[in-house]
Amino acid sequence: MTKNISGKVAIIGAGITKFGELFEQSYNDLVVEAAFDAYQDAGVTGDDIEAAWLGTFLPLGWGFDGTGGPSLAEALNLYPKPVSRVANYCTTGMEAVRMAAMAVASGLYDVVLAVGAEKMREVPPRGSLVAQHVEKLHPLYAKGRTAPGSFAVLATRYFHEYGASKDDLAEVAVKNHYHGSLNPKAHFRKEITKEQVLKAPMVTEPLGLFDCCPTTDGAAAVVLCRADLAEKRFGKKDYVLIEGMGLSCANGYLTTAFNPRFDFLGFEATREAARQAYEQAGVTNPREQLDLAEVHDCFTITELLNYEDLGFCGRGEAPAFVRGGSSRLGGELPVNTSGGLKSCGHPIGATGARVVAHVTNQLLGRCGKHQVKGAKRALGHTLGGPGAVSSVFVLAKN
Amino acid sequence: MTKNISGKVAIIGAGITKFGELFEQSYNDLVVEAAFDAYQDAGVTGDDIEAAWLGTFLPLGWGFDGTGGPSLAEALNLYPKPVSRVANYCTTGMEAVRMAAMAVASGLYDVVLAVGAEKMREVPPRGSLVAQHVEKLHPLYAKGRTAPGSFAVLATRYFHEYGASKDDLAEVAVKNHYHGSLNPKAHFRKEITKEQVLKAPMVTEPLGLFDCCPTTDGAAAVVLCRADLAEKRFGKKDYVLIEGMGLSCANGYLTTAFNPRFDFLGFEATREAARQAYEQAGVTNPREQLDLAEVHDCFTITELLNYEDLGFCGRGEAPAFVRGGSSRLGGELPVNTSGGLKSCGHPIGATGARVVAHVTNQLLGRCGKHQVKGAKRALGHTLGGPGAVSSVFVLAKN
Repeated sequence: MTKNISGKVAIIGAGITKFGELFEQSYNDLVVEAAFDAYQDAGVTGDDIEAAWLGTFLPLGWGFDGTGGPSLAEALNLYPKPVSRVANYCTTGMEAVRMAAMAVASGLYDVVLAVGAEKMREVPPRGSLVAQHVEKLHPLYAKGRTAPGSFAVLATRYFHEYGASKDDLAEVAVKNHYHGSLNPKAHFRKEITKEQVLKAPMVTEPLGLFDCCPTTDGAAAVVLCRADLAEKRFGKKDYVLIEGMGLSCANGYLTTAFNPRFDFLGFEATREAARQAYEQAGVTNPREQLDLAEVHDCFTITELLNYEDLGFCGRGEAPAFVRGGSSRLGGELPVNTSGGLKSCGHPIGATGARVVAHVTNQLLGRCGKHQVKGAKRALGHTLGGPGAVSSVFVLAKN
Repeated sequence: MTKNISGKVAIIGAGITKFGELFEQSYNDLVVEAAFDAYQDAGVTGDDIEAAWLGTFLPLGWGFDGTGGPSLAEALNLYPKPVSRVANYCTTGMEAVRMAAMAVASGLYDVVLAVGAEKMREVPPRGSLVAQHVEKLHPLYAKGRTAPGSFAVLATRYFHEYGASKDDLAEVAVKNHYHGSLNPKAHFRKEITKEQVLKAPMVTEPLGLFDCCPTTDGAAAVVLCRADLAEKRFGKKDYVLIEGMGLSCANGYLTTAFNPRFDFLGFEATREAARQAYEQAGVTNPREQLDLAEVHDCFTITELLNYEDLGFCGRGEAPAFVRGGSSRLGGELPVNTSGGLKSCGHPIGATGARVVAHVTNQLLGRCGKHQVKGAKRALGHTLGGPGAVSSVFVLAKN
């Protein structure tokens, strides 16, 4: 039943702020930096933007930054244009791009902006993610629930089922920190050794400190337009086309673990979002047809599960995939060449937009030391909820 | 520069819960009731729905209900389909419909669902709107700021400029409570007298108790499809077409009063959103071309300003417009035939969806005692931010 807007919408500009502990930049500062970078890259000004979408998930930690479209309109002086806000857990930034793309494909707007932004560090204790779970969520379903705790059970189950170990998780951390060391925008820019990973303090057994992505501040933006206008109006020889975009909600926020179809070995939402995006893009063998992928490595175990859910390898084969170097720069399908969430960090609303922006930069050959040579088609993925919702984009160079 | 999707998207089903203090219904109960009513009206089942949008503005008062698409997917068992959440202050519910309409017009989906829902009554004191302003907003811009306080200054200015009075505001309250008395879904279903309005306790000078809408629980939903499928696939002889939909952000959330263009006599966001929607719909004389309107009467003064911002009458003419009965049932352009926010209440995320659903019911001749006879084209309007953002729909019978 899935219809298709493949090839109708182009990404002509991308901007990403430095990710990190950005106490010196306000929410608006981040939004402005990301959007103006994307404007400059696209060769547009704010006057060209006809409508915009903002992705922010947790605006109410302090103040109202990001609660609605006016947060973006104000920062960028887009008045009096239409600006909307979307939120969908950790897929939030990708949702901003997806809405913007549908709006262009609908014929209502020719040139639009999508921004993802979140400040995760500058919150009072009551505003932190952990505090919100403790204070506001269901007293039974959510008792003691944290993000590492939700994913640790999958690692334990995976180890049990396939004989994998913490050493396999460490392969992911070492790889992504290596990639991050090459990316000037990453939160962490330092290589780490497997020994460091294995000796790090435990967070939730079996996930240690280096198995977890940090909470981070940051923003990212892309400018989208009708595909036929990319060259005709903006003079672009090289740009990126949206070939497929899928979204799936497979559980409730608190009920992943209670879903009888959930085997604790992967996420149905990712598999379904990929199915939609692959069908639209005509991808039948992702390992061969994709040149790189940015996936949601909130924890090292998540990246292993993503390999399998996204069809990069078979069930139980993820440890061999990462150990063989397939997902490392220079491998057959480099994954998280930016450093991923593991090194870039994870400002929730920003992440999905950063993934799309980073993939765009890769496809346009602008990634310097972490460039994948000759990349023509790539995948972007986010997983939220945790596990309830997933978004997948397939992007290609025109 | 505005493009057009006029006539491409049909509304084939509408559902509205009872609005009120619904302590006996959970958030999910409300979502299910509204959506299933809309399904039944459309003649669809959940299997027909290909994607859905949820509008909720304040999910974090207690729990995570409404923070993301999974809240709607879970309540309706839409797994594993794409479900997104939008939020844009008091235009939130209308944004859900707008995104859903663009998605259909994009060609990606044929049949989609838009739901708006909010529980405003079942929140702890720390979760209330007033507490959030006091505890979380800017200590200078937002000091002492409340919703009645923000709108009261416009009433004072309007009185000064045009010689209007509290008696004019009371005309709006009496009219909308009369309309609400005819609507079985309204929160307040009792006629009131002008004397009651004028003698009511003061909230913020000059706005008394009956000049303010209540905070309320509720949900509303609409089913949308490609216009050509309304009859072909669903056998509908009568349905509603989206002729125009506009959205405008004209200020930041906290900066309305600091905008040098703001004259405290109306809202630029409403005028611009109406301009967009009217242009798409070919409306040049709204007073003549519209048969009814649902507008954002969060306070009685707001409805008067809306008449002028939406072009129903000239500047300063709103008191005469309401006094002459033009906006009363049976008048030339009945406004808020549901009872408006004044009688229905204002569950923030639900309101915009309720407005679209109510207008749909009017255009299909199903409003019983508050039916506008022969209605063919109607307007729906919401204002949020407050004053920062506005959304306007023009809907017509096929």
